[in-house]
Amino acid sequence: MHIAIIGAAGMIGRKLTTRLVADGRLAGQAINRLSLVDVITPAAPEGFTGRVETSAVDVSAPGQAARIVASRPDVVFHLAAIVSGEAELDFEKGYGINLEGTRALLEAIRAAHLQDGYRPCFVFTSSIAVFGAPFPEVIPDDFNLTPLTSYGTQKAMGELLLADYTRRGFIDGIGIRLPTICIRPGKPNKAASGFFSGIVREPLAGQEATLPVPETVRHWHASPRSAVGFLVHAASIDLQPLGARRSLTMPGVSATVGEQIEALRKIAGEKVVSLIRREPDELVMKIVSGWPQAFEAERAKELGFVADASFEDIIRVHIEDELGGQL
Amino acid sequence: MHIAIIGAAGMIGRKLTTRLVADGRLAGQAINRLSLVDVITPAAPEGFTGRVETSAVDVSAPGQAARIVASRPDVVFHLAAIVSGEAELDFEKGYGINLEGTRALLEAIRAAHLQDGYRPCFVFTSSIAVFGAPFPEVIPDDFNLTPLTSYGTQKAMGELLLADYTRRGFIDGIGIRLPTICIRPGKPNKAASGFFSGIVREPLAGQEATLPVPETVRHWHASPRSAVGFLVHAASIDLQPLGARRSLTMPGVSATVGEQIEALRKIAGEKVVSLIRREPDELVMKIVSGWPQAFEAERAKELGFVADASFEDIIRVHIEDELGGQL
Repeated sequence: MHIAIIGAAGMIGRKLTTRLVADGRLAGQAINRLSLVDVITPAAPEGFTGRVETSAVDVSAPGQAARIVASRPDVVFHLAAIVSGEAELDFEKGYGINLEGTRALLEAIRAAHLQDGYRPCFVFTSSIAVFGAPFPEVIPDDFNLTPLTSYGTQKAMGELLLADYTRRGFIDGIGIRLPTICIRPGKPNKAASGFFSGIVREPLAGQEATLPVPETVRHWHASPRSAVGFLVHAASIDLQPLGARRSLTMPGVSATVGEQIEALRKIAGEKVVSLIRREPDELVMKIVSGWPQAFEAERAKELGFVADASFEDIIRVHIEDELGGQL
Repeated sequence: MHIAIIGAAGMIGRKLTTRLVADGRLAGQAINRLSLVDVITPAAPEGFTGRVETSAVDVSAPGQAARIVASRPDVVFHLAAIVSGEAELDFEKGYGINLEGTRALLEAIRAAHLQDGYRPCFVFTSSIAVFGAPFPEVIPDDFNLTPLTSYGTQKAMGELLLADYTRRGFIDGIGIRLPTICIRPGKPNKAASGFFSGIVREPLAGQEATLPVPETVRHWHASPRSAVGFLVHAASIDLQPLGARRSLTMPGVSATVGEQIEALRKIAGEKVVSLIRREPDELVMKIVSGWPQAFEAERAKELGFVADASFEDIIRVHIEDELGGQL
């Protein structure tokens, strides 16, 4: 089996590559070839005995998507995206990569399909950013997509393309609406959602973290490990039962900030928790108030997608995967 | 007030032009200029004393959308589209006009906005084709968009762009999801929905009509006059109360084919109704089974959009507007 990962240099892309190499198989077939693509050349994974190509490709640039499709990967994971904050700041770049890049990739596959019947499994990472307030406390699977950011708009448009290209027989597509990834490893960033990870990650590293919202704020989380699990599962199951509705809200952990902090206290103790500094920020509060709190995610659960069991588990995953298993 | 109509040569475009000329005003302001655009040069309306420009423009061709925007119309009605059947047969043409054309138009407006703050009222005709089965008997306003055609996909993508360009301040946008227009004047066509109009229009003209589905089939209708009324109302109201959700399902008449026939019998008598020939068509039945039957359309009603009162009224509109008021 030949797998292409577009956006392989990103956090999820790297973890997905590692997971696939460790598994050695996908959907019951041995993986013998990996095509790893990003705007910067991704690192080749260690310990993989099959063929690996790594390349720097901007999928939205003319002719570039065809380069990826030329080798006819059986599965395409499309993770490449301009993230929410940047797509909001740079309107043209966001539409360029998130809409035009996705369309260019799908068009290159369609051209290949018309040539020789090529029809890959296509796993598209969408996001809960396709939803925007007002909504019910628990959002059902058939709720309308009313994004409040350009990023969410572009992801929702990608979902529509995915469904239509699947219906037309060009791909066997599935869209995965990822929860907010928590705890995101690495440095703090300026994203409005950054504090959800920061108030756990920084204290665990012995550093202060800022909490800009009240503890009553509720949000929808999944660990990086779960996110990778969703992607692998998406490429492993029969997609026929999805029918025409090809994008699924993933299960997750609905937790208030207070519950996050309580989970951190249980695992790491009061001293770690005391590193969280309350610093209310009206702007962040306003942004976050438009975000979803919880989803039913019934369809995804029925299809076997499994989330972290609790926020404590999310913290444990971080400790295992990022901190070498100990505090 | 300067009004541009893109798609002015089509059935709705012509009726909208006639209505605007008759009204002489829109949103309380005198109309002193009309820019009528289509892929073929639209006819100039009779009896309009203001300035009229008619031009043949393909909005999706490079630089063409900018030509429309150059004169800075206060209101843009964007009706231009490749219709459902053709967009399904010609994948590239459908995406070319319905997605790229709409985007080109919005991008030309954005460029003008960045130049001098231009921000027109932008009325986008969407369609109930953005919805696809399975759905509840009466579809609520917050139901998800799951189109089952490329046309519906392209319209749903247009709705997303409309909302984002509005949120960014480039336009003051509103999307109008038109019901199936009934009774569509003119010749019978091959559209799967054609019979909804045909079983009334042809018998009223003394000709036989084919009914390919059972009388129990229920669908969502509006007269051409109502459709034009929706567009005029959309450009007349304060759009602020719409918030971020800029596209509205229009009210309509939910009628079974049996109720349609009964209304025709009341208005035109048994002899006319006897011209309807039952000729079941499995393919049409299958297509129609994926179509919506009724909508709540609460938001549109609250904002003052008014549908035909009954299917009898829809027939009466046809007799008045197309048959000179008598049978």
